[in-house]
Amino acid sequence: MSRTMCELCEQDGGLLVARLPKLRVVRVADALYPAFYRVIWNEHVAEWTDLPPDDRSQLMQGVAKVETVLRQHLNPTKVNLASFGNMVPHLHWHVVARFDWDAHWPQPIWGEKQREVSEPASRCFSPQMG
Amino acid sequence: MSRTMCELCEQDGGLLVARLPKLRVVRVADALYPAFYRVIWNEHVAEWTDLPPDDRSQLMQGVAKVETVLRQHLNPTKVNLASFGNMVPHLHWHVVARFDWDAHWPQPIWGEKQREVSEPASRCFSPQMG
Repeated sequence: MSRTMCELCEQDGGLLVARLPKLRVVRVADALYPAFYRVIWNEHVAEWTDLPPDDRSQLMQGVAKVETVLRQHLNPTKVNLASFGNMVPHLHWHVVARFDWDAHWPQPIWGEKQREVSEPASRCFSPQMG
Repeated sequence: MSRTMCELCEQDGGLLVARLPKLRVVRVADALYPAFYRVIWNEHVAEWTDLPPDDRSQLMQGVAKVETVLRQHLNPTKVNLASFGNMVPHLHWHVVARFDWDAHWPQPIWGEKQREVSEPASRCFSPQMG
């Protein structure tokens, strides 16, 4: 896929939270998962191991930072991490705070929905998060 | 969850491919995904960021090694990486070689099945892999 055809080359890919020279962090607009972030490598590469080890490590430090902040602020039941890129083969990591009451728990959020959940954001976010 | 109640403390968690002091690599028995591996941290911790940075890096070097071998031998359409631990909260990474003809493509393997596939192993593995 050329750079001009890739949506993560053309757009931020979500609400921009942080932009660094080599990567960015965005919040994904997902009503069921208000604590769903992506760490996106700015350059267009498909696979994690396309990166040299130093860049790979820098990307994972970004993922670790997001996971750490989610754990500190939201105390999730679990954090889920994933890098697929099957439909958008531009290297990015999903970082999702999971709760034992959420719509897919204990399945991955890409699995079968387990229950209806109303207003997950109000249950998920503590007051100081706005 | 105590160590004695955890299946990844009690068992290898798949066909053992490699055992290192801090981690192991197993092949998962999945008829649809014969190139499905897990990199499992030997000690019982739940979250990736429970590990100190050096251990976290060592674990990801294991994941990178598996991804690299899968790419070299199988030339997959994509490699999928994920760490959930919702049901077994013992730190482990899924490493799955994906192909554009496989049962869930382009969905994650935890998503909705897209098609019936017969004998995926014979299409996936090159002769030198046995």
